[in-house]
Amino acid sequence: MAVDHKKADATEESLHRIFTVPEAPDSTLGRIEKEISENLNAFLQTHIAAREKPLAEIEKDFSSAALPEAPSFVSDHTHFLLDKLVAQSVHTSAPSFIGHMTSALPYFLMPLSKIMIGLNQNLVKIETSKAFTPLERQVLGMLHNLIYREEDSFYQQWMHSANHSLGAFCSGGTIANITALWVARNNALKPDGEFRGVAQEGLFRAMKHYGYEDLAVLVSERGHYSLKKAADVLGIGRDCVIPVKTDSNNRVRVDDLKQKLAELKHKNIKPFAIIGVAGTTETGNIDPLDELADIAEQHDCHFHVDAAWGGATLMSNAHRPKLKGVERADSVTIDAHKQLYVPMGAGMVIFKNPAHMTAIEHHAEYILRKGSKDLGSHTLEGSRSGMAMLLYASLNIISRPGYEMLINNSIDKAKYFADLIEQHQDFELISEPELCLLTYRYVPERTQRALSLANEQDKEALLDALDDITKFIQKRQRESGKSFVSRTRLTPEKWNRKATTVFRVVLANPLTTEQILQDVLEEQRMIAQQSFISFPKIQSLTDKILNENEMAE
Amino acid sequence: MAVDHKKADATEESLHRIFTVPEAPDSTLGRIEKEISENLNAFLQTHIAAREKPLAEIEKDFSSAALPEAPSFVSDHTHFLLDKLVAQSVHTSAPSFIGHMTSALPYFLMPLSKIMIGLNQNLVKIETSKAFTPLERQVLGMLHNLIYREEDSFYQQWMHSANHSLGAFCSGGTIANITALWVARNNALKPDGEFRGVAQEGLFRAMKHYGYEDLAVLVSERGHYSLKKAADVLGIGRDCVIPVKTDSNNRVRVDDLKQKLAELKHKNIKPFAIIGVAGTTETGNIDPLDELADIAEQHDCHFHVDAAWGGATLMSNAHRPKLKGVERADSVTIDAHKQLYVPMGAGMVIFKNPAHMTAIEHHAEYILRKGSKDLGSHTLEGSRSGMAMLLYASLNIISRPGYEMLINNSIDKAKYFADLIEQHQDFELISEPELCLLTYRYVPERTQRALSLANEQDKEALLDALDDITKFIQKRQRESGKSFVSRTRLTPEKWNRKATTVFRVVLANPLTTEQILQDVLEEQRMIAQQSFISFPKIQSLTDKILNENEMAE
Repeated sequence: MAVDHKKADATEESLHRIFTVPEAPDSTLGRIEKEISENLNAFLQTHIAAREKPLAEIEKDFSSAALPEAPSFVSDHTHFLLDKLVAQSVHTSAPSFIGHMTSALPYFLMPLSKIMIGLNQNLVKIETSKAFTPLERQVLGMLHNLIYREEDSFYQQWMHSANHSLGAFCSGGTIANITALWVARNNALKPDGEFRGVAQEGLFRAMKHYGYEDLAVLVSERGHYSLKKAADVLGIGRDCVIPVKTDSNNRVRVDDLKQKLAELKHKNIKPFAIIGVAGTTETGNIDPLDELADIAEQHDCHFHVDAAWGGATLMSNAHRPKLKGVERADSVTIDAHKQLYVPMGAGMVIFKNPAHMTAIEHHAEYILRKGSKDLGSHTLEGSRSGMAMLLYASLNIISRPGYEMLINNSIDKAKYFADLIEQHQDFELISEPELCLLTYRYVPERTQRALSLANEQDKEALLDALDDITKFIQKRQRESGKSFVSRTRLTPEKWNRKATTVFRVVLANPLTTEQILQDVLEEQRMIAQQSFISFPKIQSLTDKILNENEMAE
Repeated sequence: MAVDHKKADATEESLHRIFTVPEAPDSTLGRIEKEISENLNAFLQTHIAAREKPLAEIEKDFSSAALPEAPSFVSDHTHFLLDKLVAQSVHTSAPSFIGHMTSALPYFLMPLSKIMIGLNQNLVKIETSKAFTPLERQVLGMLHNLIYREEDSFYQQWMHSANHSLGAFCSGGTIANITALWVARNNALKPDGEFRGVAQEGLFRAMKHYGYEDLAVLVSERGHYSLKKAADVLGIGRDCVIPVKTDSNNRVRVDDLKQKLAELKHKNIKPFAIIGVAGTTETGNIDPLDELADIAEQHDCHFHVDAAWGGATLMSNAHRPKLKGVERADSVTIDAHKQLYVPMGAGMVIFKNPAHMTAIEHHAEYILRKGSKDLGSHTLEGSRSGMAMLLYASLNIISRPGYEMLINNSIDKAKYFADLIEQHQDFELISEPELCLLTYRYVPERTQRALSLANEQDKEALLDALDDITKFIQKRQRESGKSFVSRTRLTPEKWNRKATTVFRVVLANPLTTEQILQDVLEEQRMIAQQSFISFPKIQSLTDKILNENEMAE
């Protein structure tokens, strides 16, 4: 595989060789592949979250911007990757990695993904994807069915229709959300008389034509950050994403939504989309979708549901009722790389109405010609890989009842962990699990008592110190690498809506055991005592408050 | 792997098992993997473009939107995929597949991609990517270096800087182009006094604040269709992408650009970006980038270069001068899944100024916190796979001189094919290859003579019949599956700018031989004669014209 600079012919020959399929099963590449598999298996079987090595150290291995002027042997470079990259990666599949939405994958996807990579199809057009195009259309149909449960005849009519689209496969939930709002914006500011629509003429002319003072998108204050990004990209502006207050369960407050809508109307601002969240990123809560659907209908708004996380819950007959009303959404975002357990890079947006995406349809002379079944005429992205195939395979191999079991087990596990935290004297549960997410923090028993007795000033100081120690514990636990939880800031009702730093847990890995959850708490309790600043501060404040109160009695 | 519905415990156990790494090398999955590899190798060694099977037939295999209610064995489903999907895929790696920009991959990427899939890192944040983050930053640095050739100290300062970004890895050139124009738009309509910028307040308020009548982006009429899509998404409107005329070599005409700019100025329309194309999608031509840089400077425009295809040419010291001026671009799009030969899904946008992307920076509470090195704070997408790793490996294994050889060979091959077409009596070369793309069409020798003699009406009729036959040949050749060229419509100067259907060829596969190119022409000549409508029409018109002219003499 090496290229010798002195022999141009030999170099050309070896360049040809790297594009040629090796004939012998015991070829060098075959041996390298075996080595990679063994190394990866060892990595995936190592049940830690990450190796302890500071980022600055790792950066040293990736510090040169020079382009390599001499080729490397595949075997040499593979060893470098195994040593410097794989060994320093995050064990997202470890059962003790419970901090983010990236979890273990079913192992059968490893061999199957070879098909996707090896065939290197481009889904933008049939000429470079052939059978992958009907496959992707079928997957979109299956997801549409999961949400909307239309009759079979509906899918026979629309699933493979050249001029329609039931949705778009995309790289992730962010692109899915942008696509949904793009469609919603274009439909709200559609062609009208002389005006040829926002897609052609742009927002400035559209606003002048329709005479609105501004546009707005309404979503709970727990909405994903991609929605503000979408508003920026789409030219609506981040300010136009109106945050609606949430109740004590992090669900959008319908009364506040109504009030905000009335205010907007009064100001001649057009709310063109209402977004329901089905599985908030931080706490896993689900908005009252049915009520939101009613309001969206009344105000003639596009109703989008961001179910990037929670959409997979529809696979569970037991928990499906939690998303009641999702079937009334105009569009729904679902990430298959989250709770459908396929590799990173598999988002989807599904539209109820097969004609809805016409608002963003586009064509070109060399592909996407009118009447073609090219998927690229209704996607934000252009060239795309055959990722839909891995979801297709998972849907068939795991099946709906298999997914139901995965979903149910995750939620059961979250309930177990919530109970564990509530029973533990040194921890405080911040958000109850509705799906498999929960948040909590470390508050020693005596400090809990002190908080209930403290005056405002002391309470403030104690809460600040608790924020510091949560941060300290989370960082230290991550660095020591045995397990991993993430952290965020919430505004719990219990603490008067004061921004509070909390641990965040996502329990999607089927291999996470109850023992691991017990160990995570124990490790956090131990780490807390290593904090030389926050821990003594919490202790002395606690002592002071408790002493003062005892004296007062 | 099968789940038995009657035994819930057994089902749970098997669900656990699918997430567990197989211990034995001779496991079922090991056998399946071997079968997939053998099947894929056989597919990749089959030198045809595609199997002949009508799409409607294929759709039958992907026609049900029902969610599987019973699981499948991995082995059974694998056989289904090999039979119904792989066998009906497009041989994008076949040396006779010369119609699109998707080509063969170096075979070493097959085993290495296992690392990417297996580790399932999420590059949005360090907590789920660790070493992959410095790796991706290094790759962006290397590409920046390829374009801008800054000093080593520049890269030491900026490459790993938390608050800066040299660019963004993304799913493809479309997202890259949108990102570039997003940054350009936000910088053009930046915060100013009371006005908090377009990102916060949106386009409508921005336009009122700055007092422009409209916005404009200028690009050659050969610009990629994603630019109009970008203008739609960004709220600028498709109409605001002003097409600039091209010369006979499909390069933008600087005189027309200047005139268009003057017209815009006169109308109080703000041109905020000028786009140079480095490798037009249809013909592979390169705009005069240095001149465009001058003009962009004079008009205080963001200068973006869409080098999705041509950017890799910078690897070639021989052909690099063709892109002179690219080093003056504010941003450059390059697709690694094109001429850098990595799998689908690897686009990049690179920014000259490390502070430029601040215009789209965003944060969240649970990730992307200020000061973190999370890559997600400067990307349009959210969750992303570790695709950068495959480019990193290719850059090291192939090296710059290896890429140079690939690029040079492709261009040489295109020149060979152009000569072959020009020498062939029955074909007409429409666009000369500047990179490895060219366009041509079938025009029998006698018809060429007739065209030069015909009156306007006959000429028109003949040109229409030639369009029909080009379309017929291209479709029939694709369907018969032996080889594949694509088609598009151009407006050649030679034919008075009349829209003309042409064959389009991309010669990026290193395994394409001169013999294959000869065979492609021969096959096309044979197919032409099978057209029962266009071919007789062309012949009779040709006869008529030649007869009339002979009589006239």
